[in-house]
Amino acid sequence: MEEAKGVVKHVFLAKFKEGISSDEIDKLIKGYANLVNLIEPMKAFQWGTDVSIENMHQGFTHIFESTFESTEGIAEYLSHPAHLDFVALLFPALDKVIVFDYKPISYIV
Amino acid sequence: MEEAKGVVKHVFLAKFKEGISSDEIDKLIKGYANLVNLIEPMKAFQWGTDVSIENMHQGFTHIFESTFESTEGIAEYLSHPAHLDFVALLFPALDKVIVFDYKPISYIV
Repeated sequence: MEEAKGVVKHVFLAKFKEGISSDEIDKLIKGYANLVNLIEPMKAFQWGTDVSIENMHQGFTHIFESTFESTEGIAEYLSHPAHLDFVALLFPALDKVIVFDYKPISYIV
Repeated sequence: MEEAKGVVKHVFLAKFKEGISSDEIDKLIKGYANLVNLIEPMKAFQWGTDVSIENMHQGFTHIFESTFESTEGIAEYLSHPAHLDFVALLFPALDKVIVFDYKPISYIV
C-alpha cells in the first residue's frame, strides 16, 4: 500500500432540500465544478448521485470530490472569495452536509 | 464534463467505536484491502483518515473507497462470502456508517 504523495481528497456529501428543483441543482453543480477554474490549488473535481442498493446512504443525494495537492491548498480554497461566494449560494439549498478530507492510501491489484 | 464509462465508486464512511484499538483498526483495514484479492469485480481500494479543518465530518474517522466496473459488480461484491465474512468482523467495531455509490462525472482542468 502506498500513500499518494501530497494529494488530499476533499469529499463533500450533500442532501439537497426537497423543494430545490433539478435545474437549480444543475446550476449549483456547474458552479461547484467551475471553482476548478477560479481557485488554483483545486486541481480536479468529480461528482455523482447515489446509486447504492444497501440503503445506508442516510438520505444523502450527491457527492462532490475535489482534489488538492496539500491540506494548505484546501485551507487556501476554503478562504478564497470564489469559494465563499459559492458557499453562500449552495448552503441554503442543503438539508445536511458531511465534509471529509483525507490523504488516500492506495491499494491497487 | 464526462462520465467515466462504467466505473462505479463505493464510498464507505466509518466511525470506529471508542474502545477499538489502533491495532484492531489496522487489522480491519488490511482485511478490507485484501478483499481486492478475493473478489473479482472489486478493482481498486483506497482509504484514509479525516484531516479536515472545517469540523463538518460528523465524527466519522475513516473513509474507504472501492472501485467497480458496474453496479452489478457491487451487487456481486456485496453477496460474496469473503465480503460477508469481513462485514461480520467490521460492523461490531463501528459506531456509525454511511455507504454511498456513484458513477463519477469528472471535470479536470
